[in-house]
Amino acid sequence: MSPIRIGLVGVGKIARDQHLPVIAANADYELAAVASRHGRVEGVPNFADLAALLANATDVDAISLCTPPQARHALARQALEAGKHVMLEKPPGATLTEVYDLIDLAREKGLALLATWHSRYAPAVEPAKAWLAGKKLLRVHISWKEDVRYWHPGQEWIWAPGGLGVFDPGINALSIITHMLPNALIVDKATLEVPANRQAPIAATLEMHDHQGLPVRAEFDWRQTGPQTWDIIIETDQGTLTLSRGGAVMSINGVPQIEQKEQEYANLYALFARLVAERRVDADLAPLRIVADAYMTGRWVRVEDFVE
Amino acid sequence: MSPIRIGLVGVGKIARDQHLPVIAANADYELAAVASRHGRVEGVPNFADLAALLANATDVDAISLCTPPQARHALARQALEAGKHVMLEKPPGATLTEVYDLIDLAREKGLALLATWHSRYAPAVEPAKAWLAGKKLLRVHISWKEDVRYWHPGQEWIWAPGGLGVFDPGINALSIITHMLPNALIVDKATLEVPANRQAPIAATLEMHDHQGLPVRAEFDWRQTGPQTWDIIIETDQGTLTLSRGGAVMSINGVPQIEQKEQEYANLYALFARLVAERRVDADLAPLRIVADAYMTGRWVRVEDFVE
Repeated sequence: MSPIRIGLVGVGKIARDQHLPVIAANADYELAAVASRHGRVEGVPNFADLAALLANATDVDAISLCTPPQARHALARQALEAGKHVMLEKPPGATLTEVYDLIDLAREKGLALLATWHSRYAPAVEPAKAWLAGKKLLRVHISWKEDVRYWHPGQEWIWAPGGLGVFDPGINALSIITHMLPNALIVDKATLEVPANRQAPIAATLEMHDHQGLPVRAEFDWRQTGPQTWDIIIETDQGTLTLSRGGAVMSINGVPQIEQKEQEYANLYALFARLVAERRVDADLAPLRIVADAYMTGRWVRVEDFVE
Repeated sequence: MSPIRIGLVGVGKIARDQHLPVIAANADYELAAVASRHGRVEGVPNFADLAALLANATDVDAISLCTPPQARHALARQALEAGKHVMLEKPPGATLTEVYDLIDLAREKGLALLATWHSRYAPAVEPAKAWLAGKKLLRVHISWKEDVRYWHPGQEWIWAPGGLGVFDPGINALSIITHMLPNALIVDKATLEVPANRQAPIAATLEMHDHQGLPVRAEFDWRQTGPQTWDIIIETDQGTLTLSRGGAVMSINGVPQIEQKEQEYANLYALFARLVAERRVDADLAPLRIVADAYMTGRWVRVEDFVE
């Protein structure tokens, strides 16, 4: 089979760190063109925007969207309308409705659509899921605490409406836990701490349960200096499983298990190649729904200004 | 066919005003039992809660839930697990995830589930939808302004997390418009006005569009004294349609058309009887998704205390 001719839109940090090297290393893909307002990639045609890319690089098969979520719906529709398969960075949109709209359109056109959740492909996620099978789950605690100044310097879009604030990293934890647990997580109570000079939360606490009564608590905080924490702790009747470093490491009762190589984006592009071959949609909105549920049922608390 | 033996849970205002008279008037139903903490209905067995009803009135076929949204998921699951068909008052839940969970469970069990949107059955909605067919839509304006003190006296649950505040009536307008328009509505911008002493909005403005660029603006306000407004105005290339009084009346270019009799709940129970016969799910979450999208992307503005 000839490689998938892919066009990439939005040459920013995540595109350079992950998408471009992974595409270059995967023989199933050929980078055919890029579109970006500021970024450039050598060796392929560069366009100012997706419309120009679609008008000129007409033999592109698929589009990978690495732009901020707020503008993603219009771009994804444009690509699907032009008959291109589409891969969406996370979160797949600024609203739920727009992603459901894309799912409907992709199905109607028989095109592949992938709403990516890269953290689900962290090395320890599948081994952890396998270890949990058959055990009785007692309690889940998620602690996702990082320094926004270090990880998101100058990224104004994460603070703008639709940028989700601390849920932007937090949704990675939710994407892991919704993949690992057997049942849907219902938000009972949420607190959103919003800086007085911003419109998005800098910290959030979610208390959830599933229909079997499993308590799941998540703490997201962007004000963490010093040690950074991306941990999920699952207590079972046969010991405690800890996923740390965002799913990179698994420990059982405090004893680290074998560490595997990180290849989140390599796995995402491998999955997308299969979806393109089968013209299939893979768009699980469970993580974004939980965020929406937290906004809808949560208590807003004003906290001190955030100044970068 | 023998009538559907129905159990009603939550004997409050909406049950007395609508559900009980409509059930009594429909030969397809037989009221078999009720469960309520405070309310009582003469002539049928009364129980303190759904669990007691299910344990004693074992030959009930279906459950109609008229309780506030915050407790609905656990009750609906309980009823479905017991093999009963379920009808949900609007909004169908306090969160999106819990309603998707019920849809999955009902499908798995082959039971009927109806998430009701009574305003979709207002008399002028179908005639208005028919009039719009084939016309070019230019602009939609929704104005839903009522006096919360008059319409929701002492209803603390609407102000509590999950009660949705002014979206509780506003979602009626959204249920009509999502039924009438051909495309999904994407929230671009929203403002939520939240009283300093409450956690739910007392007013909200939503700016939306569909993928063809149709602008849709909604204004919800609970501080309206004097004339109350439940209007949807749709400008087309062939004149302006106005739905007023919550969908009861239709005017074209200001000229009122024939008024029909209100029978929203009669239509809902007729639909539910068909769903029960076919063991089918009818649960369109588009209205609740728009509310969630408004919460997620909206700007919060603190306004003065609301004192009842």
